[in-house]
Amino acid sequence: MQLISFRTLALGATMGILALIWSGFASARAQQSITETYREPAGRIIEEALANDQAFENLTYFVDTFGPRLSGSEALERSIDWLHQQMKEGDLDSAWTQQVMVPHWVRGEESATLLSPRRKYLPMLGLGGSIATPPEGITGEVLVVKSFEDLQQHADEARGKIVLFNAPFTSYGETVQYRVRGAIAAAKAGAVASLIRTVGSYSMQTPHAGVMYYEEGVQKIPHAAITVEDARLLQRFQDRGEAITVNLKMNARTLPDAPSRNVIAEIRGTEHPEQVVVMGGHIDSWDVGQGAMDDAGGCFAAWEALKLIRRLNLKPKRTIRVVMWTNEENGSRGGEGYHDQISAEAVQNHVLAIESDGGVFKPKGFGFSGSDDAFEMVSQIGNLLEPIESGEITRGGGGADIAPLMKSGVPGMGLRVDGTRYFWFHHSEADTIDKLNNDDFKRCVATMAVMAYVAADMPKTLPKMGEATH
Amino acid sequence: MQLISFRTLALGATMGILALIWSGFASARAQQSITETYREPAGRIIEEALANDQAFENLTYFVDTFGPRLSGSEALERSIDWLHQQMKEGDLDSAWTQQVMVPHWVRGEESATLLSPRRKYLPMLGLGGSIATPPEGITGEVLVVKSFEDLQQHADEARGKIVLFNAPFTSYGETVQYRVRGAIAAAKAGAVASLIRTVGSYSMQTPHAGVMYYEEGVQKIPHAAITVEDARLLQRFQDRGEAITVNLKMNARTLPDAPSRNVIAEIRGTEHPEQVVVMGGHIDSWDVGQGAMDDAGGCFAAWEALKLIRRLNLKPKRTIRVVMWTNEENGSRGGEGYHDQISAEAVQNHVLAIESDGGVFKPKGFGFSGSDDAFEMVSQIGNLLEPIESGEITRGGGGADIAPLMKSGVPGMGLRVDGTRYFWFHHSEADTIDKLNNDDFKRCVATMAVMAYVAADMPKTLPKMGEATH
Repeated sequence: MQLISFRTLALGATMGILALIWSGFASARAQQSITETYREPAGRIIEEALANDQAFENLTYFVDTFGPRLSGSEALERSIDWLHQQMKEGDLDSAWTQQVMVPHWVRGEESATLLSPRRKYLPMLGLGGSIATPPEGITGEVLVVKSFEDLQQHADEARGKIVLFNAPFTSYGETVQYRVRGAIAAAKAGAVASLIRTVGSYSMQTPHAGVMYYEEGVQKIPHAAITVEDARLLQRFQDRGEAITVNLKMNARTLPDAPSRNVIAEIRGTEHPEQVVVMGGHIDSWDVGQGAMDDAGGCFAAWEALKLIRRLNLKPKRTIRVVMWTNEENGSRGGEGYHDQISAEAVQNHVLAIESDGGVFKPKGFGFSGSDDAFEMVSQIGNLLEPIESGEITRGGGGADIAPLMKSGVPGMGLRVDGTRYFWFHHSEADTIDKLNNDDFKRCVATMAVMAYVAADMPKTLPKMGEATH
Repeated sequence: MQLISFRTLALGATMGILALIWSGFASARAQQSITETYREPAGRIIEEALANDQAFENLTYFVDTFGPRLSGSEALERSIDWLHQQMKEGDLDSAWTQQVMVPHWVRGEESATLLSPRRKYLPMLGLGGSIATPPEGITGEVLVVKSFEDLQQHADEARGKIVLFNAPFTSYGETVQYRVRGAIAAAKAGAVASLIRTVGSYSMQTPHAGVMYYEEGVQKIPHAAITVEDARLLQRFQDRGEAITVNLKMNARTLPDAPSRNVIAEIRGTEHPEQVVVMGGHIDSWDVGQGAMDDAGGCFAAWEALKLIRRLNLKPKRTIRVVMWTNEENGSRGGEGYHDQISAEAVQNHVLAIESDGGVFKPKGFGFSGSDDAFEMVSQIGNLLEPIESGEITRGGGGADIAPLMKSGVPGMGLRVDGTRYFWFHHSEADTIDKLNNDDFKRCVATMAVMAYVAADMPKTLPKMGEATH
């Protein structure tokens, strides 16, 4: 509010020198005190966000009603219809969808059964993109390995067997390689199927879904996750010299690509409507649980942030746009389509991209990828979030859906939260609304709303990568 | 060791008066300083317990090899054969089994499926003792109630429906009533089946098994647990006015009672072999997970405590006996049989009963039920456990398997541990060996061994309820 007064004065001045002085003063002031300038509206945003319990109820209704929303599923498309309708009926400037074609993998019936040394049902999830087994399943001896290197060293024992990668969870980035590339490595060693110790940091016999890939020219073999408990059990059997036999049955199919949509809504900027702060999450999920944490929560936090900016009648200079990207989980076609279907100029007019895909737990701040000048500016915005301790800006961050924009030079950031239990629930039946709570969610809303509003309204545009402040 | 020297001296004295003086002195000393008297052997016991990693490996082998051990199952009886054999081959004074007849309930195939407002598989466990549904299952509208009182208030809506008790976990004792008596209350209101929100303090879509009962003269209806997540989901559907339909299929059967056995081993007392300190846990479990925490861990801790007393060549005056009771989970026939199959005199010769059935997590001490004099004495033994912080004796404690002894006046105690996650895993697929750890387990061994050894060796016998020290 203070800044707007300054600007009005400066623009309205008829005395050239005075205008120049004012202008220079305002510029210096803006650069040094984004924090001070926006303290008042930021306070109102936080207050409004914390006072509103309706958004979390809406999120709960949404995940309860539509359930999990895998790309290609009816549930996803019906959920998108509902969201689009709600956005159109809401008090935003516009709402639309953007079509992309997405992979369409269907799990089908599946099971894994330990046959020896004793019979036991193994809770499991086939991995997204896997081929099926024959109808009777694949019954084979199991070779347990601890890593890709371990498989290399025992490659002569893998032929004709089911390879189990019993790799403990270290970081997601490291451990997920067994999910993504395990079937390729196992097939190269002659395995007839591959299993992984599920990618999760805690387990109550909880398997986790997720995408996997094949490699051109390498035999495709079925690929599934069993639980941490059972992977360790099989390891112990092997360590004791006991022969392990498993029957794996999967009926998975990959159908032709199916149409899906990004869902988009915005408040148009008053001065630079062509310049866009985009924020959002992904609306698709795996086909288990409710996809509440991953990532309906991120979508609804962004949407609510936009709605509350409108409720407060704040009128940012630039456009603030919410996108619920589709197909983040197994194709990223939504994020790519969002980037590729607009002109290079329109991409360059994105001044900031904000993604929430780490769960709407208690927010800490943002991980930011951009120039030093831009980092300094968003850090000043971060100061406004001190009252709710969610303004810490760290270097490096973003997300899969905004990655195409970031590759084109758009500054990007990912909401950072207390992720202690994120990989407990991630891609599992346990990703349900009860794992989230309204208080944390409202803080996420406030955090995203303050960041988006100030970035969309401050006098200077965030510089692009390698670009000076302008 | 100090006490033994005193005793040897006293017994060996030929001068009557000196002997009397010594005797009186030793008596006073023993009463006041069990702690001081036993500090040395207690230290050796703790040291030996913490140095031995083999017992936890044995426990791991056991639960991996035999898996869950429901009463009436082959797995339970084979596990008992193995234990008995190991005990006979071990360096203990004797090992035997004691037959009892146990209930024989078999789960069979089962499922629960939400049909409307949307289709969803509901992870579930039929409750132990439940009847089956017809082969096609029972399809019915669901009435969600929060408590028995809530059911009373909506009794006119329950007829012909499936009643779901969505009672949050408060204490086990309170919440378990819905598992134990839910089918009775629901049937009285005219329900065709009953479901409960599973009895657990945390859930990752984790249903928990457990015993349930019917009442003479009240219609028997199928009774099963669904997860916390799904119970809350159904509650929300109902709160939003949506009709809920579920199909419940259960193929459970109750077969004729089957023979099972308590497994018993002991070190005979040097002075009062007829006097017994008994300690143990239960060897049966529910038919899910590994029954590692509940209660193979307790059995193996007691067994290892006995073995290490032998390894240290300690020779307690009284007998120390380990019992792995059978059928604690759904009948308590092992604990009852242990009491009922011996003479009243033999029961009275039990000086202390120690049960571990709270999981072999980090031990804190014991909950003790007995006279004030006895409490004082076991508290002095507890002081010996200060080095591993597991000697806090609190009032009240015991367990289902030693309850018959305690009813006959035998002082009883239950090992108290850090039970933070006990009801996460209890009776679920998640009760597996990885939830325990060797360090905690070894401390449990030390704690039980010190208590059992000193109680079996100290000059005065623990007084019974209402009995003075003698």
